[in-house]
Amino acid sequence: MRILIRGVAVIRKPEEGVVPKVDVVIEDSRYTGVVVGGGAGGEFDRVIEGEGRLLIPGLVNAHTHLAMTLFRGYADDLPLRRWLEERIWPAERKLTPEEVYWFSLLGLAEMIRAGTTAFADMYFFMDEVARAVEEAGLRALLSYGIIAPTPDRIEPELEKAEKFARSWLGKAGGRIRTALSPHASYTCGAEVWRETVRLAKELKIPIHTHLAETQAEVEEFQARHGQPPTLWLEQLNVFSVPVLAAHCVHMTEKDMEILAAHGATAVHCPTSNAKLACGIAPVAELLSAGVNVALGTDGAGSAGDLDMFEEMRLAALLGKLKTGEPEAIPAPQALALASRGGAVALGWGKELGTIEEGRRADGVLLSLAAAHLCPGHNLLSDVVYAAHPSDVVGVFVDGTPLLLEGELLTIDEERVKAKCRQLAQKYR
Amino acid sequence: MRILIRGVAVIRKPEEGVVPKVDVVIEDSRYTGVVVGGGAGGEFDRVIEGEGRLLIPGLVNAHTHLAMTLFRGYADDLPLRRWLEERIWPAERKLTPEEVYWFSLLGLAEMIRAGTTAFADMYFFMDEVARAVEEAGLRALLSYGIIAPTPDRIEPELEKAEKFARSWLGKAGGRIRTALSPHASYTCGAEVWRETVRLAKELKIPIHTHLAETQAEVEEFQARHGQPPTLWLEQLNVFSVPVLAAHCVHMTEKDMEILAAHGATAVHCPTSNAKLACGIAPVAELLSAGVNVALGTDGAGSAGDLDMFEEMRLAALLGKLKTGEPEAIPAPQALALASRGGAVALGWGKELGTIEEGRRADGVLLSLAAAHLCPGHNLLSDVVYAAHPSDVVGVFVDGTPLLLEGELLTIDEERVKAKCRQLAQKYR
Repeated sequence: MRILIRGVAVIRKPEEGVVPKVDVVIEDSRYTGVVVGGGAGGEFDRVIEGEGRLLIPGLVNAHTHLAMTLFRGYADDLPLRRWLEERIWPAERKLTPEEVYWFSLLGLAEMIRAGTTAFADMYFFMDEVARAVEEAGLRALLSYGIIAPTPDRIEPELEKAEKFARSWLGKAGGRIRTALSPHASYTCGAEVWRETVRLAKELKIPIHTHLAETQAEVEEFQARHGQPPTLWLEQLNVFSVPVLAAHCVHMTEKDMEILAAHGATAVHCPTSNAKLACGIAPVAELLSAGVNVALGTDGAGSAGDLDMFEEMRLAALLGKLKTGEPEAIPAPQALALASRGGAVALGWGKELGTIEEGRRADGVLLSLAAAHLCPGHNLLSDVVYAAHPSDVVGVFVDGTPLLLEGELLTIDEERVKAKCRQLAQKYR
Repeated sequence: MRILIRGVAVIRKPEEGVVPKVDVVIEDSRYTGVVVGGGAGGEFDRVIEGEGRLLIPGLVNAHTHLAMTLFRGYADDLPLRRWLEERIWPAERKLTPEEVYWFSLLGLAEMIRAGTTAFADMYFFMDEVARAVEEAGLRALLSYGIIAPTPDRIEPELEKAEKFARSWLGKAGGRIRTALSPHASYTCGAEVWRETVRLAKELKIPIHTHLAETQAEVEEFQARHGQPPTLWLEQLNVFSVPVLAAHCVHMTEKDMEILAAHGATAVHCPTSNAKLACGIAPVAELLSAGVNVALGTDGAGSAGDLDMFEEMRLAALLGKLKTGEPEAIPAPQALALASRGGAVALGWGKELGTIEEGRRADGVLLSLAAAHLCPGHNLLSDVVYAAHPSDVVGVFVDGTPLLLEGELLTIDEERVKAKCRQLAQKYR
């Protein structure tokens, strides 16, 4: 399969800005030509008109709980603990594998429409999530969320996590990779973490967890263990494997140094952290410390949706509020966090994140036709500060189109929405 | 003209939540039937199917500079003073009436598509703005922005402002009203403010100004005048007329009491205030103090776009961050600020802001079909935390449809965009 996107404006790397009139050639799963000025030759199975359009690297949602689309709008404007204990956890006890499958497909449809090509997910009934991802064509790092508050839960939880991690690693033509996910330092004890690190090393896979989301959680941990969670995790050798640490809102300088020294990723989830009043993660400081930063939506239950354009915009806006500097987290950096930062986080840093010859062909084609993108002085700025999912007209993963000219190609969206509306009745 | 929206879910007032299956009847410019359970009788000139849709009060953008769509993406990620002095003011000196006309139409197209039915605008070449509003069919409170840093500018500026205010007051079938706009306490001296108050009283129109946007501005004013700008304005009797005070980021308790005591409106512009790192306005405190709060985008030059869904979402998110309380500015309140709060601000508080029999028929019809609005546990929450302009399928002002089924009915959008792209070349 050979695809030409003809005469399109391209953001190859965010720091480079926008290059006009490029012929982009995709062969099988990779970009094989990025010809500035146009003029790519040869035969093509498909030619996509690029005029009035912009191609950007695929957006990576580096922390979500996909099937929580079931809980969109279910319990808003509540504190994290009440939200979890009174609303979400009781509802999750009623969850079935069937529901997780359908609401995963719903989330995948929403993500494709919003230009997301890869994501990191942690939840339950992960076989169903993986099945949905396999069908929908996205790229994903998937893991079973281990919660073991009592000793009797350790064994069965680890078993589930290991079974899932082994069985789906490298599946779907390599699009699916797996991770291990002790939920957090306060829900899993040292034994779980040690065993997880051992297994992650054996399977050469990352650990995806929650870290320092609320002030209260960090203070309670400090009171119980005499040190902050990041330091405690380091002493358990957790950072000797690649780590995706979601949130990182309440971090000391030392915590940041630890993440940087080990090449761990902080996944900034600005909407979720704001909505639950957790605070603003110190993104500019994390970046200065040398930490890889990615962006995530968190679950739609807490964030309301799975829209990475919103997360880019909010990362830029909150970065300025946090530092008091309007220059902080400028548009190119926000886009870099959402693309390359996420690619690195998920373990595809050498293959994804930019639009260059030889890289895997994950990308998003945006229409520039909308009034809200006119007159277009700076298309990169417009992507971050003005674009919406409705501007997305093409989405590619490994060179395969998942959406083209507004049409989802891998998901029967009407059927999925109807099924989800029906299944949601149980929770009313 | 008699229109029926049949069997539609309706948010009559945000605090009431969503009422399913309502027949809404519009006769000429007003809602004449809001029939819960359906069954509205009689003949209709037009029937709009309401199933799978939600009707909400029209959104009001209570502070913008419409024609600054010309400067979208023109100078992002800069501090307010550099942004103004190095980029925006030099460019504005080159502005022509023709440019203001076309970029106003562009902004109007964007606003209609985003469900905005009314707005307050302050800029230059206001005859052109008014002409565009008259054609496009929105409702607006328009004013010429008075900047008089030196004594010789006072007379000519006041003359322009007065001439515009007199000539367009009550025009376009009453859809256009006018205001007087000394730009700010630091750009206009006591003489301008006194004369403005006198004229506002004579014409029975409000004053629309900027107030306490940056910390530096408030501190410098305090150093020069020995009191904060709000107190200074009160002593000049400015609040004896209705006032729209944009921003109100840096307010003392006393400042808030002054606004509350006089029935002034604080216009919260969360995107602009974040993007320029001005801070977060104390919205929860303003509301507790009894101040009417409305929402605004500010100009697209500073905010990136004119999307009131984004401002609602950000008002809710920043309200939680500012207070540390996830219950702060819940979804119904965010929607109330964007609708009723704005209607009150613009002086239409008794005629607009809710969907009730007898009120003027300004409203927005949303499709609930998108994946990002599924499964729909709480449609009001979804409007604030997940909806986008692309969900808007109908917009009415005074009962006249401005957008229906995705089609703009009053603006030749393709022509406007082409013209704007051409005119923007001058600024590259």
